Amino acid sequence: MSNQEALIEQLRNIVGDKGLLTGDDVSSRPNESWGRGSCPARAIVRPASTEELSAVMKLCHAQGQTVVPWGGLTGLVDAITCREEDVVISLERMNTIEHIDAEAGVMTVQAGVVLQPVHEAANDAGWQFAVDFGARGSAQIGGMIGTNAGGNSVVRYGMMREQVLGLEVVMADGTVISSMNEMLKNNTGYDLKQLFIGSEGTLGIVTRAVLRLRPQARSVQTAFVALDSFADVAGLLRRLGVELEGKLSAFEVMWRNFYHFMTEESGKHQAVLPTNHPYYVLLESEGADPVREEEQFMAVLGTLMEEGHVADAVICQSSQQAAQLWAMRDDVETLIHATFPPAIFDISLPIREMESYVDDLASTLAERYPGTRMVTFGHLGDGNIHLGIGPVEDKHAIESLVYERLGQVGGSVSAEHGIGLEKREFLPHSRSPEELAVMRTLKQSLDPGNLLNPGKIF
Amino acid sequence: MSNQEALIEQLRNIVGDKGLLTGDDVSSRPNESWGRGSCPARAIVRPASTEELSAVMKLCHAQGQTVVPWGGLTGLVDAITCREEDVVISLERMNTIEHIDAEAGVMTVQAGVVLQPVHEAANDAGWQFAVDFGARGSAQIGGMIGTNAGGNSVVRYGMMREQVLGLEVVMADGTVISSMNEMLKNNTGYDLKQLFIGSEGTLGIVTRAVLRLRPQARSVQTAFVALDSFADVAGLLRRLGVELEGKLSAFEVMWRNFYHFMTEESGKHQAVLPTNHPYYVLLESEGADPVREEEQFMAVLGTLMEEGHVADAVICQSSQQAAQLWAMRDDVETLIHATFPPAIFDISLPIREMESYVDDLASTLAERYPGTRMVTFGHLGDGNIHLGIGPVEDKHAIESLVYERLGQVGGSVSAEHGIGLEKREFLPHSRSPEELAVMRTLKQSLDPGNLLNPGKIF
Ligand SMILES: Cc1cc2nc3c(=O)[nH]c(=O)nc-3n(C[C@H](O)[C@H](O)[C@H](O)COP(=O)(O)OP(=O)(O)OC[C@H]3O[C@@H](n4cnc5c(N)ncnc54)[C@H](O)[C@@H]3O)c2cc1C
Ligand SMILES: Cc1cc2nc3c(=O)[nH]c(=O)nc-3n(C[C@H](O)[C@H](O)[C@H](O)COP(=O)(O)OP(=O)(O)OC[C@H]3O[C@@H](n4cnc5c(N)ncnc54)[C@H](O)[C@@H]3O)c2cc1C
Repeated sequence: MSNQEALIEQLRNIVGDKGLLTGDDVSSRPNESWGRGSCPARAIVRPASTEELSAVMKLCHAQGQTVVPWGGLTGLVDAITCREEDVVISLERMNTIEHIDAEAGVMTVQAGVVLQPVHEAANDAGWQFAVDFGARGSAQIGGMIGTNAGGNSVVRYGMMREQVLGLEVVMADGTVISSMNEMLKNNTGYDLKQLFIGSEGTLGIVTRAVLRLRPQARSVQTAFVALDSFADVAGLLRRLGVELEGKLSAFEVMWRNFYHFMTEESGKHQAVLPTNHPYYVLLESEGADPVREEEQFMAVLGTLMEEGHVADAVICQSSQQAAQLWAMRDDVETLIHATFPPAIFDISLPIREMESYVDDLASTLAERYPGTRMVTFGHLGDGNIHLGIGPVEDKHAIESLVYERLGQVGGSVSAEHGIGLEKREFLPHSRSPEELAVMRTLKQSLDPGNLLNPGKIF
Repeated sequence: MSNQEALIEQLRNIVGDKGLLTGDDVSSRPNESWGRGSCPARAIVRPASTEELSAVMKLCHAQGQTVVPWGGLTGLVDAITCREEDVVISLERMNTIEHIDAEAGVMTVQAGVVLQPVHEAANDAGWQFAVDFGARGSAQIGGMIGTNAGGNSVVRYGMMREQVLGLEVVMADGTVISSMNEMLKNNTGYDLKQLFIGSEGTLGIVTRAVLRLRPQARSVQTAFVALDSFADVAGLLRRLGVELEGKLSAFEVMWRNFYHFMTEESGKHQAVLPTNHPYYVLLESEGADPVREEEQFMAVLGTLMEEGHVADAVICQSSQQAAQLWAMRDDVETLIHATFPPAIFDISLPIREMESYVDDLASTLAERYPGTRMVTFGHLGDGNIHLGIGPVEDKHAIESLVYERLGQVGGSVSAEHGIGLEKREFLPHSRSPEELAVMRTLKQSLDPGNLLNPGKIF
C-alpha cells in the first residue's frame, strides 16, 4: 500500500465509508467557479462532526497533507480549486440547525447548513436572517463566513461579519477553537472570530456558528426611480438615509447601459420607466406597519420629485411587481449572454470617485476595444459596483485596465466575492506590501505548514 | 551617559522637546483607572505624526524598549498602567480631524482626537457619530478603538468596531500598516483592522482612522417604563425591535435596587414612577419626523400597556425631562458613594440566563455578605449588565463569585471595558485554553519582543 493509499484508509477509519469519496465521486465534482471543471483531488472527506474533523486535521497535519475546505461551491473566485495532491474537506454532512433562541434572536448552526433553510427557520421563529442572495439554495453558512458574503441588504444590516456572534473552528493542527459567544458585546481579549471571517478557508475550518437574527419586517416598500445625474443618485442615498430613519434595506443602482439592455434591447424584462435616463435605482424599505410605511415612502419620494432630484418613479403596488424588478436586477444569465465571453467585476470605491471612474473606464474601453459592451450596476449604498464587460478576448488586459485605475482612487478589487485564485495577482492594487506582509505573518503563525487552502489569496 | 539616558536623547531627537516629557511631567500623570496613582515610566513620548511614531518604534524595537500606548486615560481596567522600565506613547498631539466627506458620511481622524470634537464635527457636517458615553470629553478615538468601546446606542449602531472603516497602525517594529479603507465592503484578504480593534494596544498603535458616520436623527423619543417581570423586559425588547422598525436606539434596564436607590433612598433624583416595580427600562427611539415618531411611539407603548406587558410608563415631553432620566442612569458617583468601597462589574450573558443569574448572585451575596448592597443596571439590549456591589472588604472574593457563575452560563467577564490588568486573572472564565493559546500566538507573531503594552490582557 502506498503512503497515499494508507492515508486514505486512515481517513476512512475516522469518517467511515459515508464520509469518504474517491474516484468518480470526486472527479464528477467541479473544480472552478460556476460548476466548471473536474475536481482532481485525492479524496473528498465529509466529516459528520467537529470531533471527526479534528481527528482528520490531526492526521493531515502529521502527514503534511494539504486540504481545501468546501462549502456549497457557489463562490465566484476559484477559492475551492484543488490540485491532485489536495484532499477536500466538505462540510456538507454537518448541516444541522442546532438551536434557535427565539427570545433573543440567536441561531446556532453547523457550518454546512445551507442559507435557504436558515431563512426558513428564522422566519418560523418570528425573526429574519439578514444576508440573502441568489445562491441561497446552495451556499453554506461556513462558505458565507469564509467569504464574508454580502448581498442586497448590506446597506441596512451589514455583511456576514455583522451576523456572526460566535464561531467554532478547527485549526490546521486539529485544535478546536470554540468561541460560541451569543452576546452582542464581548471584549475579552482578541476577537478571534474576526480572523476567520473572510479568510477563505486559509486560517481554519469553520464547523459551527452562532448567528444573530434580526426583527422580522412586516411591510416592505419597493420603488424604482430614474435620475438624471450621478449627484442625484448620491444625494438620494443620503436623503433616504435620513428620511427613512434607517429602514432603507436596499439601494441598487443601474446605469442606463444595464437597464436599457435588460429591457428594450434584450426584450427579457418590461421597461416600467422610459429607458433614456442615465441612472436608475431599485430601492426598498423594511418596516412594521404597511399603512404608515407606504404613506412615509410616498411622501419622501414625492418631495424628492417635486424638488427635481428624482426624474421619474414607480412605487410597487404588489410584491409581484417588486419581484419582477428584482428579477431584472438579478438576471445574471442575460447579462453573461450579452457579454459572452464576459469579464465580471465586483469592485468597491468611494462614492465620490464612482462617476468619473466609470465614465473614464467606459471611454477607454470604447477607444481601445470598440464593440465591447460594458454594463454597470451594483449595491451603491455600500460603495460596491459590478461591471460586466464583453465580449472579452484578452481577459487579463481588461482586468488590468479595471484594477489599475481602481487602486489609484483607493478602491477595492473585491467588494464581496473575495480573492481566491482569480484575483490573487491583483490583490496588490488594493493592499500595500506592508499589509500583505502582515497577512503572511498571520497565515504563517496559524498554519505554519501551509496546509489550509494553499495558494488562495496569496 | 547611561543607556537609558542615551535612549531618551535619541527619542528627543525624533520628537523634539515638545514631544518628550520626563520627571515631574511624567509622575504627575496617573497610573491607574479613575486618575489614581502616579506614572513611574521613564518618559512620555508624544509624537506629532505617524512618521515620528514609526521612527520612535524603530528605535524602541532596536533597543528592546517596552512601550505603553496612552489615549485619554478614561479606560476602566488598568490597561494604561506602566512599570518603571516602560516608556509611554501618548497620542495627545495627534489630534487633527483630517477630512470629512459629507456626501458619503465618512470622517478621517488622527487617533488622538477626542470623542467630543468628533461628535461636533459630525453634527456640523449633517451627520452623527454613533458611539457616545460619559467620558466623551477625554476619551480618544485611538483609545476607543483600543478598547472597542460601546456606550448607549450599541443596540442600534453597534460598538466601535462597527464605526471603523479603515485604520493606520504602527507595529512593534515601526512598520506602518495603512489600511485607510473608506468603503463599507472590502473583501481583499484578511481584514487586518479587526485585529487591532479591542486589542488594548498590545498588537499595534493606532495612528489614524476612517470613521463611518450615521444619518442624523431629527427626532428623539424617550420613555421610562416599569415592568412587573423579567419576561416582560425581554418581551419588551423583542416587541420594540419589531414595532419600532430598527429605530430603537437605547434600552437601558434598571433593577428595582438601582432605581429605588437613585430616587427615594439617595434623594438625588426624582422618582417619575412609583419605585415598587421589580424592573424599569429607559428607552429611546431615533427617527426623522417628530410628529410621526411620537404617534408611533405612543401607539406601541399604549398597546403594550393595554396588553399588560408594561405596568406603568412616562413618555418624556421635553429633552430636559429625558436628560434628567439619563442623568439618573449615568450617576456613577452616587452609585460609587453608596457602595463604597465598591466592586463594579461590566459583564454580559445571554438574556435567557440573566434573571436567574442576578437572583442567584443577589441571594448568595445576602447570605455570605449581609449588609452588602448590589445594584444592577445596564445595556440589556446588548446582553450587557453592570453590577455595583459594596461595601466590599475582600474584592477578590466578590470578583470570584461574580465571574465563576458567569463562565458557567456562557457569559463574558467584560462586555465593553476590556481586560487590562484588572481582569487578566479572570479571563479564563470566558476564554478556553485553546482560545488563549491562539491569542498568544497572534501576540507572539506580531510583537515577538513583547514590547507593546506588556502584561496587559494576558
Ligand atoms: C447566483 C449567485 C449569486 C451570488 N450573489 C452574491 C452576493 O450577492 N453577495 C455575495 O457576497 N456573494 C454572492 N455570491 C458568491 C458568494 O460568495 C457565495 O455564494 C457564498 O458566500 C459562498 O458560499 P459557499 O458555501 O458556496 O462557499 P464555497 O464556494 O464552497 O467556498 C467559498 C470559500 O469559503 C471557503 N469555505 C467554505 N466552507 C468553509 C468552512 N466551513 N470553513 C472555512 N472556509 C470555508 C472555501 O474554501 C472558499 O475559500 C453569489 C454566487 C452566485 C452563484
Ligand atoms: C465616565 C466614564 C464612562 C464610560 N462609559 C463607557 C461606556 O459607556 N462604554 C464603554 O465601552 N466604555 C466606557 N468607559 C470606558 C472606555 O473604555 C473609555 O472611556 C475609552 O474607550 C478609552 O479611551 P481612552 O482614549 O481614554 O483610552 P485609554 O484609557 O487611554 O486607553 C485604553 C486602552 O487603549 C489603548 N490605547 C490608547 N490609545 C491607543 C492607540 N492610539 N492605539 C492603540 N491602543 C491605544 C491603551 O493602551 C489601553 O489599553 C467609560 C469611562 C468613563 C470614565
